[in-house]
Amino acid sequence: MKETETNRTAGRGEKRSRRDVLRAGAILAGGLAAGMLQGCATGNEDKDQPVEKSRTPLGAWDKEYDVIVVGSGFAGMAAAIEARKAGAEVLVVEKMPVYGGNSAINGGAFAVAGSPLQEKEGVKDSVELMVQDMLKAGRGLNHMGLLKIVAAGTRPAYEFTLEHGVEYKPFLQHFGGHSVPRTLQATISSGAGIVRPLRASAARMGVAFRNRCKLEDFVLDEDGGVMGIVVRDRYDFPKENSGELRRFRARRGVVMCSGGFSQDRRFRMMQDPKLDEKVDSTNQPGATAEGLQAMFAVGAAPVQINLIQLGPWSSPDEAGFGMVSQFNTIAGFPNGIMVDVRTGKRFVNELGDRKERAEAILARKDEQGNPVYPVVFCTAEGASRAQTLEKCLEFGVAWQFDTLEALAAHFGMPAAGLAEEVALYDEGVRTGTDTRFGKPMGRAIPLGKGPYYAVRCWPKVHYTMGGVEISTEAEVMHMRTGLPIAGLYAAGEVTGGPHGASRLGSCAVAETLVIGRIAGRNAALHKA
Amino acid sequence: MKETETNRTAGRGEKRSRRDVLRAGAILAGGLAAGMLQGCATGNEDKDQPVEKSRTPLGAWDKEYDVIVVGSGFAGMAAAIEARKAGAEVLVVEKMPVYGGNSAINGGAFAVAGSPLQEKEGVKDSVELMVQDMLKAGRGLNHMGLLKIVAAGTRPAYEFTLEHGVEYKPFLQHFGGHSVPRTLQATISSGAGIVRPLRASAARMGVAFRNRCKLEDFVLDEDGGVMGIVVRDRYDFPKENSGELRRFRARRGVVMCSGGFSQDRRFRMMQDPKLDEKVDSTNQPGATAEGLQAMFAVGAAPVQINLIQLGPWSSPDEAGFGMVSQFNTIAGFPNGIMVDVRTGKRFVNELGDRKERAEAILARKDEQGNPVYPVVFCTAEGASRAQTLEKCLEFGVAWQFDTLEALAAHFGMPAAGLAEEVALYDEGVRTGTDTRFGKPMGRAIPLGKGPYYAVRCWPKVHYTMGGVEISTEAEVMHMRTGLPIAGLYAAGEVTGGPHGASRLGSCAVAETLVIGRIAGRNAALHKA
Repeated sequence: MKETETNRTAGRGEKRSRRDVLRAGAILAGGLAAGMLQGCATGNEDKDQPVEKSRTPLGAWDKEYDVIVVGSGFAGMAAAIEARKAGAEVLVVEKMPVYGGNSAINGGAFAVAGSPLQEKEGVKDSVELMVQDMLKAGRGLNHMGLLKIVAAGTRPAYEFTLEHGVEYKPFLQHFGGHSVPRTLQATISSGAGIVRPLRASAARMGVAFRNRCKLEDFVLDEDGGVMGIVVRDRYDFPKENSGELRRFRARRGVVMCSGGFSQDRRFRMMQDPKLDEKVDSTNQPGATAEGLQAMFAVGAAPVQINLIQLGPWSSPDEAGFGMVSQFNTIAGFPNGIMVDVRTGKRFVNELGDRKERAEAILARKDEQGNPVYPVVFCTAEGASRAQTLEKCLEFGVAWQFDTLEALAAHFGMPAAGLAEEVALYDEGVRTGTDTRFGKPMGRAIPLGKGPYYAVRCWPKVHYTMGGVEISTEAEVMHMRTGLPIAGLYAAGEVTGGPHGASRLGSCAVAETLVIGRIAGRNAALHKA
Repeated sequence: MKETETNRTAGRGEKRSRRDVLRAGAILAGGLAAGMLQGCATGNEDKDQPVEKSRTPLGAWDKEYDVIVVGSGFAGMAAAIEARKAGAEVLVVEKMPVYGGNSAINGGAFAVAGSPLQEKEGVKDSVELMVQDMLKAGRGLNHMGLLKIVAAGTRPAYEFTLEHGVEYKPFLQHFGGHSVPRTLQATISSGAGIVRPLRASAARMGVAFRNRCKLEDFVLDEDGGVMGIVVRDRYDFPKENSGELRRFRARRGVVMCSGGFSQDRRFRMMQDPKLDEKVDSTNQPGATAEGLQAMFAVGAAPVQINLIQLGPWSSPDEAGFGMVSQFNTIAGFPNGIMVDVRTGKRFVNELGDRKERAEAILARKDEQGNPVYPVVFCTAEGASRAQTLEKCLEFGVAWQFDTLEALAAHFGMPAAGLAEEVALYDEGVRTGTDTRFGKPMGRAIPLGKGPYYAVRCWPKVHYTMGGVEISTEAEVMHMRTGLPIAGLYAAGEVTGGPHGASRLGSCAVAETLVIGRIAGRNAALHKA
């Protein structure tokens, strides 16, 4: 019985879709649209097609909502909550069996310009300073409008997360490329500490969730505006044709929060052939490009697609994001040094931006072009806040040494060179200046006395800066008309612009929450 | 009467297009296509739509050809000739009133690996060496398959141009980034010297041409293959809605040779916000992105779109490509030096690749960030082959000086610094090595004695490395399926991959002719 009804619905859906997709086609024709649609209009009034007239759009939809959010990471949760707050009936679709996307496995670090903790610790910061830091890392390629909104929105977004039950560590962190400590981190050192409470809160507010539900395409009206989406329901990742096709209506808008494509090997290799199967990624396997590509297919513009970021803090000794990344960001890089095992010498500012650090590390290769993994280490004091250290030691991806000699010996480093380097560094800690690489030494910790904790380091594909063009109202812009695609909004890694050439650490949570909130609110108010 | 017929045709065309564009929509639905099309099939067999059945595709077309080539530059002409040779009935559409696109105003310089002139002059070169040079300039981002085919195809493409009446200067040139002199140049120092004879030859062979005819969109069959195109006929650039909509059938294939987007300020600023109206371009005004965007809209993949090249040899004293560019490539850069007017000192290898030279020049700014135009100069001997020099002098964009002192005085340069630099450079000419910047000195000319010819230099947007993904058979690949879009081929600047991060000078003619020939041949053989 249900089966029959499903078929009938689907049947009607597909008949109905002939006109919708004609409209999808029409908008693709850009300047042709007008002409085409006269064509349709004429067609619809043809005596030979009475049936066309009687069909109503509603006949075709399997389900109806005001706002549909695609993706359940930081951006998706922020969008869903704000859309619901604005009075919309909201559905969140997630293609994977688990919710949270890549946000659930990231570090949960959140750069906030002017946080209470900064005030408490006497750190002078401002929205302007955060903009300058992101612009420097972005090599001036940042879309300024978006960048300013992101930085200005961090403090309100921080308070938004508190309202929804997120808890942060009681101390600030100094992430690479930021000129002051401005990074807060979820207590559990994972984005799950942010995205889970937000989802629980959204559910309490009455937001509907549907997992294993993958966006296939958009359904457009005659003006090229988004009416709804076609999904593969009960989708079984990564089986492309699994699940059943369904048509969901979004009365007010669709918000795309489908994330980046770091795990989409084919699409990322088109942009950089060097990012082949030999290069690991920190991302969850669902971080692929089809959501982005579905937007291109309805006219969204590709922005800076080949700006792909490698995380400089990951380890060749474990798969994916791993535990070493957290050790390096919270301990090894700020409180220790990174050295080339062939010399025992430093080669880059351990708090430089990700691009300069990743490029410097990737340059450590032997004559045959094989990687020569650098070593990062700090003292027990420097490692005191690294929650993953114990597990790192347990799983043999970090090592403890009582002396520098032992550390050097373990990695086959020249002990004299290393000792010399440490003396030089500690002198910099004393004077407060790193004369060679310009590392901010304000909170640096001397390395004179062991024990030492050390890890090996090699970059992994971490973040895709590029995406679709959006306005400062999170509207997806049409590449040919330069106008918003009505009813289509986007936020987070699937969009391009705010970070330019290189995203600073802890600025993803900032961007996704800030723009996600704007996108959700605007989608809910659209046609409302 | 004609009017009436036009209307009838257009009317039928637009009715017909309802199904075609439905198909366009269907393919956009990616995995959904199958489902959609069952939908259509059902629809078509509905008792309530007898008329659908009786309609035949042919009813809708205003004109029919085997192969339609979009764009009339190097790639378009090479494609048209090869398609015709393979027995196809060929139409070339050009949106501008004049034929030739940007090819007609470029320098007409053509890098050939292993040319008769190299053999005659005893220059050792090889396909492998050209690949290595392009890969170095491309920073390893090149798509290797395409790169190898381009280099290997240069000698045959050179002979192809001779067969069709192109004439070259009797000497080799050494362009920046090439490790040996490998560049031939059309006798008239312009791409018109290549593209005009090719067009004349194509016309003699029976290729049809249509100017002021702009691609609006593609018409797809139920499998998403390209059946033909919709054009704005009698298009009046840049009036977007001028002209009349027409539908042209391409029985075998469409070849997109629509060029780059250096003049598309909106699209280029999305990729690099710094490339605003204050940055000039060397390109013709028609170098915009809509052809590229039309391909994205039928599923083509964006490749390295934000890799945009600035030409380092252009002058702030004239608009567009100008005459100084030719002086610098043939005389100033290989036979002279470029100096910072504040010091009289060189600051870059004048034969480095375009990226390193443009970046070095753009770094010449004062405290307020205003450009400090560098000066390029050489001796009368060095300038002997610069055909545009006379005109440069006549129009006051180049200057002649008897002595270095006079030259220094004119540009407000420290004379001592300049004299010192010239002595240092001449020493390098004597020893055959440029110890500071590594310029290849094999054919360098000493600067000890005047008269001198000097110009000012500032980069302009010149070339867009990015474009759609194509196979080594010049098939446009679908971004979601990874398979060719049947009946759609592309060549030249509208494609991405062969040049990577930075195209070497005189490699555009190479790429466009080599891939254009492949695209034309394959389009003609498709379904033939």
